[in-house]
Amino acid sequence: MANSNTRIVLASHPSGEPTEADFRIETVPVPDPDDGQVLIRTIHLSLDPYMRGRMQAGPSYAPALEIGEVMTGGIVGEVVASHTPEFSAGTIVNTHLGWQAFGVADPGDLRRVDPKLAPISTALGVLGMPGTTAYFGLLEIGQPRPGETVVVSAASGAVGALVGQIAKIKGCRVVGIAGSEAKCAYIMDELGLDAAINYKIQNVEDALAETCPDGIDVYFDNVGGGTGDAVLKQINTGARISVCGAISEYNNIEPELGPRAGRILLTKQARMEGFLMFQFADRHEEGRRQMAEWIGQGRIKYREDFVDGLENAPRVFIGLFRGENFGKLIVRVGNDPTA
Amino acid sequence: MANSNTRIVLASHPSGEPTEADFRIETVPVPDPDDGQVLIRTIHLSLDPYMRGRMQAGPSYAPALEIGEVMTGGIVGEVVASHTPEFSAGTIVNTHLGWQAFGVADPGDLRRVDPKLAPISTALGVLGMPGTTAYFGLLEIGQPRPGETVVVSAASGAVGALVGQIAKIKGCRVVGIAGSEAKCAYIMDELGLDAAINYKIQNVEDALAETCPDGIDVYFDNVGGGTGDAVLKQINTGARISVCGAISEYNNIEPELGPRAGRILLTKQARMEGFLMFQFADRHEEGRRQMAEWIGQGRIKYREDFVDGLENAPRVFIGLFRGENFGKLIVRVGNDPTA
Repeated sequence: MANSNTRIVLASHPSGEPTEADFRIETVPVPDPDDGQVLIRTIHLSLDPYMRGRMQAGPSYAPALEIGEVMTGGIVGEVVASHTPEFSAGTIVNTHLGWQAFGVADPGDLRRVDPKLAPISTALGVLGMPGTTAYFGLLEIGQPRPGETVVVSAASGAVGALVGQIAKIKGCRVVGIAGSEAKCAYIMDELGLDAAINYKIQNVEDALAETCPDGIDVYFDNVGGGTGDAVLKQINTGARISVCGAISEYNNIEPELGPRAGRILLTKQARMEGFLMFQFADRHEEGRRQMAEWIGQGRIKYREDFVDGLENAPRVFIGLFRGENFGKLIVRVGNDPTA
Repeated sequence: MANSNTRIVLASHPSGEPTEADFRIETVPVPDPDDGQVLIRTIHLSLDPYMRGRMQAGPSYAPALEIGEVMTGGIVGEVVASHTPEFSAGTIVNTHLGWQAFGVADPGDLRRVDPKLAPISTALGVLGMPGTTAYFGLLEIGQPRPGETVVVSAASGAVGALVGQIAKIKGCRVVGIAGSEAKCAYIMDELGLDAAINYKIQNVEDALAETCPDGIDVYFDNVGGGTGDAVLKQINTGARISVCGAISEYNNIEPELGPRAGRILLTKQARMEGFLMFQFADRHEEGRRQMAEWIGQGRIKYREDFVDGLENAPRVFIGLFRGENFGKLIVRVGNDPTA
């Protein structure tokens, strides 16, 4: 086993778009687990838009990272040393270890990953946080009913691609918004949505009017910004807007201005609601079980965008905000013994 | 009985703030009720902000008025001729007759008003549309819990004054926002709220920070505009924003810009929801009964701002948008036989 650990820490709080200079790679000794703890070797690291918020100074829903702290992040890894009877060496687990090759964790922070169920990387995607986010955010906040029109932004992304497919399973007409022709083709041909809008080359408002002739009942918002304005103008009475993310705004230094939503929500008796997947923590297992069943039935497809090497994490993380990934972005940090 | 009818019709769709030239007073014959209908003499006419929306060309939640149409409006009146056994002459009723001294109506559009319960003008306020709006908008959309902090704008107005008092009855800490020192004194001394903010002379954001040290759990929004921005910055996790009105925006020609709400709703897992009192139509009687009980117990106070003469309706209606009224604005159109 290696006795040096590679990790990536926050070098500076970014102002606007992060740069590679906001991150620092460090080589440090592999940590020793305390009594009751385990040492974990990272196999896959998840890169997600929410991490941008943690890099910011000042409060959000979770405390900001301090300079020099290891970047936060969910991982799938292998227990390589255990000081607890609960997890033996060789066990594959999902936890929040951050951007590093090794880390120690308490048993209470680990979730077992079953390599027989699906590739273990799915514990970071369709069977992990993005999966439960899509499942509960659409069904509990968006409350789609059969026959309704659902619009989802970032529709080929880790969460959006699942939202669109779940909405189809629930009998909705589904329109996806994405940022390339390849992504739009994927949304239509692979995911089976009813229409796709390429926001980089189409006028979103016009394209929504064309693809949503009966108006919009549910909007699952991953991006914020002007896309939501175009949607708001076309919502139906009683519409629900499930706010999951605002990736287009995360690098803004000043809050972005847009038409005030209140008056439209009023005349349409509509609801706009933000959520975090933690809200549904006591039901995550239910969400994962349902997603696994749909995958088994071939009703849910997923796409993973793998990048090799922890040292590349800052670069590809920055690319997330430019839509450079295609599917769930995962960094292969170490060898997968189950593959 | 008079045989000429005075009525006020829409002369032009206003652009921005309405002017008196957007209205026209007409003298026409008193209409004849058809078989099954009644003729009503208007006693009190309600003036409400929503009427501005009906004056606008283009669709809203209700169809726009056409040029030459009688201005829409709720009234309390007396049946003066009846061609139906359901309502005899002399009955006091609440209906939507519009801005006119006489009008015909079908029995299905009439609600009996009991002069023994309270002054009949209250059927346009605390025991009418503003009352049910406050009751259901606060309790069903805002869902205040004891000990929470509730903020209400237009807090001395027809709806806001009731919202603040209902929130106090429900055990909340309540902060009201209004536009004069007299209104702020009324909010504190008469309505018993915990704090009042005069938005015309105070910085609302700073004043909210001072008066809501534990953050804001429920915001009942009557005004839209920048006040909501100041509130949004200070909402607690799980906050509810009940959007009842946007009076500060109704005269805008272009939609007003403000910081986008989505990202704050997301990090705070908060909900912003518009409503119209029609949504709760099947429970209006429940709302009126509860309001009447609270009035009887001295727990709800109300203030009416009477103006004499239908011809003054356009002028005082325009003043609504400048906050010139103080309490529920009512035009005395005819003699009240119950007073």
